Amino acid sequence: MNGYAADGKSESKVDLVIVGAGPAGLVLAAWASRCNLKYRHIDDKLQRIENGRADALHPRTMEIMQSFGLAEFILKDACPIREIASWNPKRDDEEVIERTGRCSIHDETLGRYPQVGLQQGMIEQVLLDFLKHDGGHDVEWNTTPTLCEVIEPKGDEDIEYPVMMQLGRADEEEYSNCTNGTASASKHHEIVRAKYVVGADGAHSWVRRNFRIEMEGEKTDANFGVMDIIPITNFPDVRISCTIHSHKGSIMTVPREHRLMRFYVQLPESERSPEGVRHPSMDLPDILNAAKGILRPYDLDFKICSWSSNYTIGQRIAKTFSIKNRIFLVGDAVHTHSPTMGVGMNVSMQDSYNLGWKLGMVLQGAANSDILATYSDERRPVATKLIELDKKMSNFYREGPSENAYQYENFRAEFSAFLAGSSITYGTNDLVAPIKKPTERSSHQHQTNGDCSSKQDIHSKSYLATGVSTGQRIPPQELENQADGLTWNLQDIIPSDGHWNLLVFSGAVTGKETMTRLNTLSDKITSSKILGNKNQSSNGLQLRTILIHSSQREGIEYHDFPTAFRPYDDEKGYDYWTIFTSCLKIKKGNPEDDGDAYQRLKIDSSRGCLMLCRPDQHVAMICDLEDVAMVESFLERLVRKTIDA
Amino acid sequence: MNGYAADGKSESKVDLVIVGAGPAGLVLAAWASRCNLKYRHIDDKLQRIENGRADALHPRTMEIMQSFGLAEFILKDACPIREIASWNPKRDDEEVIERTGRCSIHDETLGRYPQVGLQQGMIEQVLLDFLKHDGGHDVEWNTTPTLCEVIEPKGDEDIEYPVMMQLGRADEEEYSNCTNGTASASKHHEIVRAKYVVGADGAHSWVRRNFRIEMEGEKTDANFGVMDIIPITNFPDVRISCTIHSHKGSIMTVPREHRLMRFYVQLPESERSPEGVRHPSMDLPDILNAAKGILRPYDLDFKICSWSSNYTIGQRIAKTFSIKNRIFLVGDAVHTHSPTMGVGMNVSMQDSYNLGWKLGMVLQGAANSDILATYSDERRPVATKLIELDKKMSNFYREGPSENAYQYENFRAEFSAFLAGSSITYGTNDLVAPIKKPTERSSHQHQTNGDCSSKQDIHSKSYLATGVSTGQRIPPQELENQADGLTWNLQDIIPSDGHWNLLVFSGAVTGKETMTRLNTLSDKITSSKILGNKNQSSNGLQLRTILIHSSQREGIEYHDFPTAFRPYDDEKGYDYWTIFTSCLKIKKGNPEDDGDAYQRLKIDSSRGCLMLCRPDQHVAMICDLEDVAMVESFLERLVRKTIDA
Repeated sequence: MNGYAADGKSESKVDLVIVGAGPAGLVLAAWASRCNLKYRHIDDKLQRIENGRADALHPRTMEIMQSFGLAEFILKDACPIREIASWNPKRDDEEVIERTGRCSIHDETLGRYPQVGLQQGMIEQVLLDFLKHDGGHDVEWNTTPTLCEVIEPKGDEDIEYPVMMQLGRADEEEYSNCTNGTASASKHHEIVRAKYVVGADGAHSWVRRNFRIEMEGEKTDANFGVMDIIPITNFPDVRISCTIHSHKGSIMTVPREHRLMRFYVQLPESERSPEGVRHPSMDLPDILNAAKGILRPYDLDFKICSWSSNYTIGQRIAKTFSIKNRIFLVGDAVHTHSPTMGVGMNVSMQDSYNLGWKLGMVLQGAANSDILATYSDERRPVATKLIELDKKMSNFYREGPSENAYQYENFRAEFSAFLAGSSITYGTNDLVAPIKKPTERSSHQHQTNGDCSSKQDIHSKSYLATGVSTGQRIPPQELENQADGLTWNLQDIIPSDGHWNLLVFSGAVTGKETMTRLNTLSDKITSSKILGNKNQSSNGLQLRTILIHSSQREGIEYHDFPTAFRPYDDEKGYDYWTIFTSCLKIKKGNPEDDGDAYQRLKIDSSRGCLMLCRPDQHVAMICDLEDVAMVESFLERLVRKTIDA
Repeated sequence: MNGYAADGKSESKVDLVIVGAGPAGLVLAAWASRCNLKYRHIDDKLQRIENGRADALHPRTMEIMQSFGLAEFILKDACPIREIASWNPKRDDEEVIERTGRCSIHDETLGRYPQVGLQQGMIEQVLLDFLKHDGGHDVEWNTTPTLCEVIEPKGDEDIEYPVMMQLGRADEEEYSNCTNGTASASKHHEIVRAKYVVGADGAHSWVRRNFRIEMEGEKTDANFGVMDIIPITNFPDVRISCTIHSHKGSIMTVPREHRLMRFYVQLPESERSPEGVRHPSMDLPDILNAAKGILRPYDLDFKICSWSSNYTIGQRIAKTFSIKNRIFLVGDAVHTHSPTMGVGMNVSMQDSYNLGWKLGMVLQGAANSDILATYSDERRPVATKLIELDKKMSNFYREGPSENAYQYENFRAEFSAFLAGSSITYGTNDLVAPIKKPTERSSHQHQTNGDCSSKQDIHSKSYLATGVSTGQRIPPQELENQADGLTWNLQDIIPSDGHWNLLVFSGAVTGKETMTRLNTLSDKITSSKILGNKNQSSNGLQLRTILIHSSQREGIEYHDFPTAFRPYDDEKGYDYWTIFTSCLKIKKGNPEDDGDAYQRLKIDSSRGCLMLCRPDQHVAMICDLEDVAMVESFLERLVRKTIDA
């Protein structure tokens, strides 16, 4: 512990320190706030970024923002991207480009939101506003770790706050001398002891370097410039996202807020020689000139440029995503790549979205810290896939007008599901039950009185709802509330508040048989220590039960349903937002598209199912209405203390 | 001018004083802010109301809120009301009630928003936030007029600020002695001279009483209690708006934010005798007890009540809505009635919405003050209709279980168009052109080179777009932007910013003939002093031109359109938000419903039309693409100074 110096201040203790307040750090903070964690949030910048950087949010990331109630604030300023135009050299005059295709990227099966373009700083502001409103902690700007280590316990010793961290702040002089917005922070030290640390501190992560975690992969010689301008041009697709290939190089564009357009422009490659690598000139005039050449026969100029930069393409991934399950790295700190797919910020935010609620459960005592290993298990494969696809996509822009460029729609089809983020499916682990195929008995005799599985045999009957995979996020579905008749989206009923959600798909409830099954289920839930205790079990696990039937709302009354589905509060009466029907009165267009949750999820409404969803809306387990004991076993395993029988 | 005392302060001058900061006053302020008027806004309360009062916004009022960009802030907390359940005595056991009908009030032809329930204070807050963000002036709370008069000019004298007003503020002692939240403000006087004053100061309007304007009409003996509670009940429709009749009285309910429910409960009638009128006890326990009796066999109780009040039904309307075109009265100051229709706040806000932009035009010098007379011409008939319908509706609740109560859906059909507010159509006046029927010549030979009407003969060819009436607000329509392919609502393209809007419905643009007509139109617009000067004529009139064609977007490029439809700015390049198509790529459900503006507006796409819309989105004139001179004449008449030829 040499070198620590507290600058006169006493040592403080917190559950969690989040290093970095970019989009990934802020999503982590959103969870920390929602889970009421005692945390600190530091960033070495003086304030959030003002211009430039990342600017694309994909459908699943929009759903994540909405899970904190924030989609509307993004959509207010963002540019939806529903179409990508592809441009290539004219077949009969290769000196000029022409539009060769229009590719619709509006695919409702991938999510309820479009891809949108919005400057990173505005996305950060939406999250900062959320934290303020939600009672989260302020970001401590101009604060950086200067020392950090994980204290090893001696023998059986239990160290409650094993992470020792020294924080520093730069003074004015240091700041005025620094050129890149961050200073060395050699003064004003403070010591913090934490249970966990998350490094969301970007590609040059201090946390990663401090723990000497290597990045694997390398840079290429391909260079790109990027500029956010209000273009003055006669190019017709200047408000459409474009992929443009010419014999002078390639361009990718993203329409943005306030008349801005983002241009990614291919620049000359770096030259390697025995003397070393020589990079081309990559100033803003170089970027504009390169763009002018590529866009011929169209003109391009601008008076207003809000940001420009440049980069050399490379793909790298960290050797490990965590140290001793105490230090975790998310986002650019563990995966860097080209911005060409426009998905980096999304994968980074999704890393945090995956990790945050798990830290919440562990710190609230609702789960054993073993579950934290699932972060790396679940997110490392996504990062690996990202790196692999980024190599393909950056080559696509590097290699000139290829057959893929002329057939862009087909080429993009390889990427679209990954980009949307909604197809990501986590494998079996502590938080995702193993999938079991149907047996003769289980597929026909579901209406047993007891449970068809022993406590040891935990598994997911994926075959009961084949429209979603176990491990995948539950898709958005329109439902109608039993009590008020209003339309709700299923995802909005299970927001990011730390609750697990037990969705009861009962099928039609007008028949006596289903009501008998629901009564039995209600009794089991009510008497369960882990499921029945007013949304919070004695072990700190929070769980909400939602009933989704498939009968017309008019055929049954709210008070006809068993008590477990009608939570009652002495002050506020009944909770009318727990019973829904998939049978919408106000149907939109084709009911098979989004009007009927049973059809979309492929649930047999004569059998129904239970679907246990994690706090991040991913499906942990699918089983029969009679399998309550299996759900209990699954959740009990996560809980630190043994439940009293 | 006796009695004025400025308390040591100097006299100040403003364009406009708005008295009252309830919903009507705030909508007036929203216009004043958008039109950059020099105004002051006073209210005798210490702050906005916190609880209770009005709580319903109808479709047109929601559109008005959206015209200032505010619908999302209302919808965030509000309860949409899509269904009204009617309850009546059971036919075979008249002591208890049963549900006798469900009436859908979701009618897309009446607007794009549902009716919603939200507490008045929260609606006021949305408008206060808008004013802050828009750079409007703060409301001066605890400020009330104490003297006011309109100075008469002597002979030809032109008095620029003819309204003399003395303002007073109450001190702490006065406030602490007052019981109803307003004090007598006998001290701290200040003198203001204004061009105009708007009294939006409610049923007990100081402004109205100061000018001795009488209210006509009277009170009945019918009493109602009102309470906002979180009900604890087994009544199944407690989250649905209900109309309930029993032999013990009647109830109307409105579902609200934060689990609240508004109950209007019929109480015993007042008793008249030679000694005077005796009112029944109307405290909260009386209201609850009356409600319990009416709701049998269901239970009702509460722990939380945010507000309660009571009222005696009456309907009254002011003899005049303005004094010398200098003092205007809006909202409850000129029409009071029962809250039973839930439309009072809406009509009040719509009064202000009608008046505000007219004051803006006059004060900006873009129109002669004569146009202000249209305020009373347009709004008085609406208030008269309101009073007439309110008598019917309050009798419906007063008279017990009538046949109308059992046939509620049919009964409500008489009111629905008026309640929605979107059917209101203003008659011919300075701001609405007279309607002319088609002649043989005009209906067949529209493609003349010159104009088919002389400047004197201003009229609206309503027959060119029979889906909307001249004088009615243009209905919402989904359109696709030519440049970015995104879906926009027509109403969002013509927001409340003081601009008149010339909508050019050109029909299909792929043929050569239409392009020739558009080129001619473009030349005429560009060379027009009043239409062509970059959205602001030399006379201060602001006008925006929007082209809405009916061809597929892919068949034509943005730059193919004539220059008048592609405004260009030296810094920001082209304005890509002026050309749209009604032919949507992303069609919803049935295209005839809302997918095609031409079908909905009943415009013949082979002929097209020009549609001139006022700043409040009401249609002023419909004419042929060749009738530019008639549009010019119409607007020239409004402008104060004669345009140089």
